[in-house]
Amino acid sequence: MKGLKGNAIVGQSGGPTAAINASLAGVIGAAKKSEAIGAVYGMVNGIVGILNDKIVNLSELMATDTDVDMLKHTPSSYLRSCRYKLPASTEAPKIYAKIFNIFSKYDIKYFFYIGGNDSMDSVMKISNYAKEIGYEINVIGIPKTVDNDLLITDHTPGYGSAAKYIATSISELMGDCDVYDIDSITVVEIMGRNAGWMTAASALARRDKLDAPQLIYLPEVVFDMKKFVEDVKKVKAFKKNVIIAVSEGCKMEDGRYICDGVSDGPVDTFGHRKLSGAGRVLEEFFKTNIPGVRTRVIELSLLQRCAMHFASKTDLDESELIGQAGVHAAEEGQTGMMMIYVREPGSEYKISISSYDINKIANGEKVIPKEWITGDGTDVSQEFLNYARPLIEGQPELYFKGGLPVYKRLP
Amino acid sequence: MKGLKGNAIVGQSGGPTAAINASLAGVIGAAKKSEAIGAVYGMVNGIVGILNDKIVNLSELMATDTDVDMLKHTPSSYLRSCRYKLPASTEAPKIYAKIFNIFSKYDIKYFFYIGGNDSMDSVMKISNYAKEIGYEINVIGIPKTVDNDLLITDHTPGYGSAAKYIATSISELMGDCDVYDIDSITVVEIMGRNAGWMTAASALARRDKLDAPQLIYLPEVVFDMKKFVEDVKKVKAFKKNVIIAVSEGCKMEDGRYICDGVSDGPVDTFGHRKLSGAGRVLEEFFKTNIPGVRTRVIELSLLQRCAMHFASKTDLDESELIGQAGVHAAEEGQTGMMMIYVREPGSEYKISISSYDINKIANGEKVIPKEWITGDGTDVSQEFLNYARPLIEGQPELYFKGGLPVYKRLP
Repeated sequence: MKGLKGNAIVGQSGGPTAAINASLAGVIGAAKKSEAIGAVYGMVNGIVGILNDKIVNLSELMATDTDVDMLKHTPSSYLRSCRYKLPASTEAPKIYAKIFNIFSKYDIKYFFYIGGNDSMDSVMKISNYAKEIGYEINVIGIPKTVDNDLLITDHTPGYGSAAKYIATSISELMGDCDVYDIDSITVVEIMGRNAGWMTAASALARRDKLDAPQLIYLPEVVFDMKKFVEDVKKVKAFKKNVIIAVSEGCKMEDGRYICDGVSDGPVDTFGHRKLSGAGRVLEEFFKTNIPGVRTRVIELSLLQRCAMHFASKTDLDESELIGQAGVHAAEEGQTGMMMIYVREPGSEYKISISSYDINKIANGEKVIPKEWITGDGTDVSQEFLNYARPLIEGQPELYFKGGLPVYKRLP
Repeated sequence: MKGLKGNAIVGQSGGPTAAINASLAGVIGAAKKSEAIGAVYGMVNGIVGILNDKIVNLSELMATDTDVDMLKHTPSSYLRSCRYKLPASTEAPKIYAKIFNIFSKYDIKYFFYIGGNDSMDSVMKISNYAKEIGYEINVIGIPKTVDNDLLITDHTPGYGSAAKYIATSISELMGDCDVYDIDSITVVEIMGRNAGWMTAASALARRDKLDAPQLIYLPEVVFDMKKFVEDVKKVKAFKKNVIIAVSEGCKMEDGRYICDGVSDGPVDTFGHRKLSGAGRVLEEFFKTNIPGVRTRVIELSLLQRCAMHFASKTDLDESELIGQAGVHAAEEGQTGMMMIYVREPGSEYKISISSYDINKIANGEKVIPKEWITGDGTDVSQEFLNYARPLIEGQPELYFKGGLPVYKRLP
């Protein structure tokens, strides 16, 4: 038998994904088998749930293997989420006192937090504070984010499913846009504020050279409106129906987002004072600069981050494994670590799971490497495709009722 | 042996759907087995393909059963489409001469046209003209439209898959919108200009009483902006996160669409002169009338009509059957008919396929019956749910490569 004897608490934070509950299922599944861990509690609405003592007993809620497996196949955050940023302990000592008071009350010796950058910051702070006050607890971060922008880990749980949904949607839009024999431009706006991993995934849709997306705009590349129009005109010379993938995070040279630039800047001649996104600005821009072409903007919106109905089995399986591995690492006495995927060398896709010092990960951001961005800043390389392709493989088996998937819900 | 000896031609017209190729697969499959029919030709871009002699040999392109099955599982229109409205023969005799000249050239004795309202108008005209000039040909319309607005037939091929995608997306959005403990309104804009069948399908997402969508706005009900705000406020009294399904076709008392009204009317105080859709107008409206609430609009856009990746198996199977039945009806000498689904009485869902005089179907439109619209015009009845539920059942088996579905393409 190994590890501290006590209970575990787990929470989810940040934007939901299709795979964040698979990691929760992994934590619960492994914790239930653990000889060290007693009950598994869940904080509702992340760390805010601890502060408000909104805590549920997951050992009871997920009593059977079927419960856990159904949770694995449930999108969004079962335990709900928060956008709360834990202040430094020196600034808010009472908040830390409250958190650790709850830990004592529930005899918490294991803390698992599933989330992205901000969540890893909370993991780091709680772990460092526990060391300072000498509270024995194993604090482990489990990564998740559709953005794929966490440092060190090969990729993040949730990214593969989002990438699969994006590529599939682009592939189906391509078929739709090609049916009429008319000139058209379709702008597909994809999530990702600073890192273009999700937008780049649109390239996975291509089977032939002329396939959509014909142009890809990433936040990693400075966006220039004049060059953009030239790019589109070049493509339109050999392709009637053009599909363009644009990241919502594309910024111009002065650092403003596309829509910011238009609402304040010199191109504000369209009568629009407020715009929801990059795609819509570009659509309007075409109407003036490339007249006579049917334009359309499609925002993949929230649909792209929670589409369990077409999630990647690889993503879900790995997300469950990394949750389980987090429990094993904690049992071994690790703390202040984030679990990471390590891609094994070789042509066949294989990952192992390890852990890494959270202080070196939290608050960092991984963007697409420069050498993977090609086509004069409008495409991604074969290396990117080789990297991303294995992450979208496989169809999960969902639970169905009345023709629709059935998802677990917090009572 | 039965039927005229000769070749067949088939075309697709109108907006693409997830199931229109399943009907094409049905026509090709049955025609290949027919002793009367020789080659099966396909017109590219619908009737326009005949006028331009852009015709392909489908017997060759779909040589194997796997080809036909893969076509069945391909979204959008394999033979592409057109929005061409065939004029009356008295107005454009040369066009009819050209069409029938091509029929003679290819020895066409069977004409199948897969489409919606406008396409059935073409079927009617070609069939009536053939009778007038005494050209022996069997002209059959195969229905398709995500809108479900064709008369006589119980439902239309393509609707079930669109309904399934819409309900699934709403169900996944519901999970996503519920994770934060904040007030929010999400408007989901759904296709359908005059008939609200697609928007009504959002109700299939519900499992519990408080589930999304909490409000449903259909084109069948006059839209009143004041009542709308009151409706939303009522729901917000007991539900923090509200999801509203709105048809793009909702019209106000004076007959204008929501966005028309706002761009000309008294509420044009947002600096917006042009708006893409109803959802976006309502989103802006909330910001003024229900302040302090996070609002968001999600347009399901083209994604909802071509999402083969989550199509209804029932829809695809029935769509193939109705294509096959069209060939059998033609072999029996029927002409000027549209194939229809007839729902058998009884509690278990069962359909048979029949045919109906095209003159009584073309240019008509079926909207949701008044008695199926409840909740003071903001909901649909259990009768609607009973009607729609069987149409979304079952998961088709797609072809996969590299993690994504593989679809057939016209060379």
